[in-house]
Amino acid sequence: MKAARIMEPQKALEISDVPTPHPKDNEVLVKVKAVGVCHSDLHLWEGGYDTGDGFMKVTDRGVKFPVIPGHEIVGTVSEIGSSVQGIAVGDNVLVYPWIGCGNCVACRVGNDNLCDAPRSMGVFQNGGYAEYALVPHFKFLAKVTGIDLDGAASLACSGLTAYTAVKKSNATSQHNMVIFGAGGLGLMGVQIARAITNANIIIVDIDDAKLQAAKELGADHMVNSKDPDAVQKIMSLCNGKGADCVIDFVNAPPTVKMGLAVIRKRGIMTLVGLFGGSIDLSLVSIPLKAITIQGAYTGNYNDMIELLNLAKRGVINPIVSKRYSLSDANTALEDLKSRKILGRAIINP
Amino acid sequence: MKAARIMEPQKALEISDVPTPHPKDNEVLVKVKAVGVCHSDLHLWEGGYDTGDGFMKVTDRGVKFPVIPGHEIVGTVSEIGSSVQGIAVGDNVLVYPWIGCGNCVACRVGNDNLCDAPRSMGVFQNGGYAEYALVPHFKFLAKVTGIDLDGAASLACSGLTAYTAVKKSNATSQHNMVIFGAGGLGLMGVQIARAITNANIIIVDIDDAKLQAAKELGADHMVNSKDPDAVQKIMSLCNGKGADCVIDFVNAPPTVKMGLAVIRKRGIMTLVGLFGGSIDLSLVSIPLKAITIQGAYTGNYNDMIELLNLAKRGVINPIVSKRYSLSDANTALEDLKSRKILGRAIINP
Amino acid sequence: MKAARIMEPQKALEISDVPTPHPKDNEVLVKVKAVGVCHSDLHLWEGGYDTGDGFMKVTDRGVKFPVIPGHEIVGTVSEIGSSVQGIAVGDNVLVYPWIGCGNCVACRVGNDNLCDAPRSMGVFQNGGYAEYALVPHFKFLAKVTGIDLDGAASLACSGLTAYTAVKKSNATSQHNMVIFGAGGLGLMGVQIARAITNANIIIVDIDDAKLQAAKELGADHMVNSKDPDAVQKIMSLCNGKGADCVIDFVNAPPTVKMGLAVIRKRGIMTLVGLFGGSIDLSLVSIPLKAITIQGAYTGNYNDMIELLNLAKRGVINPIVSKRYSLSDANTALEDLKSRKILGRAIINP
Amino acid sequence: MKAARIMEPQKALEISDVPTPHPKDNEVLVKVKAVGVCHSDLHLWEGGYDTGDGFMKVTDRGVKFPVIPGHEIVGTVSEIGSSVQGIAVGDNVLVYPWIGCGNCVACRVGNDNLCDAPRSMGVFQNGGYAEYALVPHFKFLAKVTGIDLDGAASLACSGLTAYTAVKKSNATSQHNMVIFGAGGLGLMGVQIARAITNANIIIVDIDDAKLQAAKELGADHMVNSKDPDAVQKIMSLCNGKGADCVIDFVNAPPTVKMGLAVIRKRGIMTLVGLFGGSIDLSLVSIPLKAITIQGAYTGNYNDMIELLNLAKRGVINPIVSKRYSLSDANTALEDLKSRKILGRAIINP
Repeated sequence: MKAARIMEPQKALEISDVPTPHPKDNEVLVKVKAVGVCHSDLHLWEGGYDTGDGFMKVTDRGVKFPVIPGHEIVGTVSEIGSSVQGIAVGDNVLVYPWIGCGNCVACRVGNDNLCDAPRSMGVFQNGGYAEYALVPHFKFLAKVTGIDLDGAASLACSGLTAYTAVKKSNATSQHNMVIFGAGGLGLMGVQIARAITNANIIIVDIDDAKLQAAKELGADHMVNSKDPDAVQKIMSLCNGKGADCVIDFVNAPPTVKMGLAVIRKRGIMTLVGLFGGSIDLSLVSIPLKAITIQGAYTGNYNDMIELLNLAKRGVINPIVSKRYSLSDANTALEDLKSRKILGRAIINP
Repeated sequence: MKAARIMEPQKALEISDVPTPHPKDNEVLVKVKAVGVCHSDLHLWEGGYDTGDGFMKVTDRGVKFPVIPGHEIVGTVSEIGSSVQGIAVGDNVLVYPWIGCGNCVACRVGNDNLCDAPRSMGVFQNGGYAEYALVPHFKFLAKVTGIDLDGAASLACSGLTAYTAVKKSNATSQHNMVIFGAGGLGLMGVQIARAITNANIIIVDIDDAKLQAAKELGADHMVNSKDPDAVQKIMSLCNGKGADCVIDFVNAPPTVKMGLAVIRKRGIMTLVGLFGGSIDLSLVSIPLKAITIQGAYTGNYNDMIELLNLAKRGVINPIVSKRYSLSDANTALEDLKSRKILGRAIINP
Repeated sequence: MKAARIMEPQKALEISDVPTPHPKDNEVLVKVKAVGVCHSDLHLWEGGYDTGDGFMKVTDRGVKFPVIPGHEIVGTVSEIGSSVQGIAVGDNVLVYPWIGCGNCVACRVGNDNLCDAPRSMGVFQNGGYAEYALVPHFKFLAKVTGIDLDGAASLACSGLTAYTAVKKSNATSQHNMVIFGAGGLGLMGVQIARAITNANIIIVDIDDAKLQAAKELGADHMVNSKDPDAVQKIMSLCNGKGADCVIDFVNAPPTVKMGLAVIRKRGIMTLVGLFGGSIDLSLVSIPLKAITIQGAYTGNYNDMIELLNLAKRGVINPIVSKRYSLSDANTALEDLKSRKILGRAIINP
Repeated sequence: MKAARIMEPQKALEISDVPTPHPKDNEVLVKVKAVGVCHSDLHLWEGGYDTGDGFMKVTDRGVKFPVIPGHEIVGTVSEIGSSVQGIAVGDNVLVYPWIGCGNCVACRVGNDNLCDAPRSMGVFQNGGYAEYALVPHFKFLAKVTGIDLDGAASLACSGLTAYTAVKKSNATSQHNMVIFGAGGLGLMGVQIARAITNANIIIVDIDDAKLQAAKELGADHMVNSKDPDAVQKIMSLCNGKGADCVIDFVNAPPTVKMGLAVIRKRGIMTLVGLFGGSIDLSLVSIPLKAITIQGAYTGNYNDMIELLNLAKRGVINPIVSKRYSLSDANTALEDLKSRKILGRAIINP
């Protein structure tokens, strides 16, 4: 099969023929129809993350090169192992890629995405930048019916991450929710927040076009963070008391600082983005305001099912903004890096 | 009545006769038997908190001088207003001092301690450094029977704060819990954690005598944070994976940094102390490790009742280490400031 | 002022002039614009409930006659006590009628509706079948703007009850929810479930017209319980596994039996209606299926605010189907008793 | 190996030689040291449960005969499959027997015990009434160190069931907890409730000796249910308001009726026992009192680990009251049936 592999960080992906795997036991082979191009693919390609005071290498987290990236995988089942149940050749499926060890405390409660020894597809094992993807167990598949296959791809990562972040915010119709970042993640976050919280949603970004897009997808108010009065405007949209919840899909120093400036007493701040950097955090205000700062990292299988159901019901709409062929995988990553992609790009192998 | 009042920050308290209040409607007058001497009294006396990059004045938070400090109040009911129910003259009572507006979102669910417009006794209204204290509503009283009155005083603040912090850690017998600080708060925290979580408790402090005291009260292991291998020792006591929960009763830069060094993926870090300062917080690790950093600030009335019940059952033992007369209120505060007090000091007016 | 009072059970209400109360301290006088006519008013008028093996008298629960019924009250503030804050003469308000003692375990966490010694308006103290209603504390008011006042009335009871029941069901887009009863409560329940759960909603009733109304308001499927295959049809709409949650707004023997027949393992059954009667409950299946049967009784103030926000956002629409003048209060109750009212009737005093 | 098998319901177990299984892949073979004799074994042997209006056959739930019963298994690992990790030959282990399909909604969150298609050992597949037991995956094992192996057996079922029931009661030191049944389950329930809730515990049974045993293990009060004033006595031990939580380890009509008589408003009643029968349940009181009736069925793997930790810490003490050899398996079951066993019996194969 044809596959695009990262041979080593910061080098062009090698696009070539590799042996097509064959499923045994519980394994399933999926003919890839679409695979999302995600910022995490960029981090993998770049070899790590900026931590503010250094660089966290992905190889130190257990990544081994070469690897086929791509964790947002939809496709059609083309072959199944002998023990597979409930999944048949020809089924359209979305792959849950955040596979865990199955045995640690997190996996024990179904949070494979927070596993102590993760085996995520497209990261720690081969993913979907290829004609076929081998899924290690049929339980990591979800059947997809009634929605656009290409759009469904992003539900496995950016959609799922946004969903987890919104759920962890515990918002209701009583709350003011400030969302930083109207990129792919943020736009999905707005749709999800609109669909499941009924909160008063304030979207914050530096780009008016993206803000406008967020408003059309359900944000109640928009604030451009370049506005020198941005903090006051947000506060005033939050009844002068501040945000009950802040979701930061950027998670860079400027957004986190602004988030801390607008969070109200007892507020919950959820950091999602992997932009990097560091801030100077005043310690005494954490207990005095009894605020919570928490991270959200992708989501579990159940959440992916819930999200798929929202898409089937039509209350959220994953949007594909650009399509690439597999041979253009390097271009896709370059375009993402240079911010040429609005919303979500996919590769159709 | 005789009372000790802070007339202005950083000046000696004035100890003099002031008019004795009389209760009406739902109010209750309590003859003070003991009042705890708390670090918060020091902050009030000093006029504010170090925020790392400045000084947060208590007057900016709504404090008005002169004020009678003292929020850990036990005593005997000496007079009741006309609408008081369930409380009689002669009852021994512990005062819940974290009185709220009764009307905000926090008060609506019983979290007066997190009120948007707090009216706490000994802070925003007169407290217990006096012969009598006027409690605005009988519902802020809890009857005390079967335990030492002097010891009960600290349950209203340091005990309650420790209790909230332990509860917010969600620990079970499966968890490794690291507690920073074996002072008054921390020793109570260890007892409470022992009584309600069955976790593996690791106490960390710079003082071996305090560590030893914590061990006797229920900690399973102790680590002196001055030990250059402290982080490794803590990690090894946590199965090499790190702490499921960290409770920081100091909340100063060195302890928070060590806490972040030992917290495991998915861990919960609870910041309690008001020591002050700031740290450089790396942003990307919050989502990647999916950790939570949360503040805990005193507790609500229900928690105080639960705590009183633990004391009645004898599974926790509030310890009074030093006693002062009301006329020695300034000495008490000076002794606390210069770290001459181990455990809890009280004033017996 | 003119008021309709129940002088004794099962006698016509006396509609006559009574002294207009005047608010003091925290009290507020509301000029009643609309008051809902509720089945609970009928129970009050009839003097009690059928318990299956007897009759539970409202006087045994603490009701004293004569009393002005009516707990779904909207109106305009006409006079305020001296301590009232945040509420001004002329404000349009919805009254939270489920007033508690303020001091019991339930009230301590804001669940006045579950108070040990309730003081509900229109039940234990005078309500809104009158030109004016005296509200004991301004904190029991919610300002109403941007929605129809008449419609808002039902949010204080039938809407609130439905909201609590839906919330207690913990449903997500993964769940199959079966709702029994498409009357006033049930229709509101369907709208709320649609707005906050994204579940697959199956409405069950004996009346096809009501079923159709439920479908238009958001139910996904409808089953007439008179259909001999009703149980099988419901099961098949629940993937053959049964309902994750059942909400029974009727709570009569036939509906509860059908609910138990369709509830799946681990399912949650919420009983709401006060129809009465009893069933023969097999004990062994409760642990073997690990099911939960729980009651829901009105809701708390916070829930009412959340519900008001849903109405403001337009995702729910309280419907008034019939209007009466205060002098026709007896007719209104008679009409409700003889099932002549579809949806919600109100009295405009 | 020697094994005792149920060939068909209500016939003596056949004790004979059967082939010793050999583990492959993730499987583990355990040399059985002790296996608990449980009431569920009796139900299996009898072929079903009394449902009040009939008999629920175990074969209708998926049991196939012949089967080796026994789900409370401790032993030593004697052989491991090729993919086993973290478990070595010679390890002492407790088996988690409530194995699920791994794929349903319950299994997805680690609640194998509530699986839609359970594969429990000793029920749906061979268990531990044998010299060896084959465990399908190493993740169903927990290492046992520092506690008595024989005693540990009961932690996999009766202990685990009691633990789940106590946890689901959400009790704190503020609550009055009424426990019905001071048999094996109930005595463990008392110890667990003492260790993790600090509640006021009232044990109810018909046998004074068992009541006394419960008191020695931590119950605060005891009431003999044969006492004609039992209900009043319980009420008075619950401050006249009733029990915040009731745990019924018997779950027979008399205990459930008494439980409903003493449960307070907002109370939680947990039904555990599989005694059977039915009661006449009045429907209107469920919503009016807002009570919850819920079932508890064994527990999940995480809970078993937490429970093991409680035993290691010594705050609970599983008690073995009688020991049998494998060849006396029929006698053991007969003795249990005729109530000759106080506490827990085990078989040492």
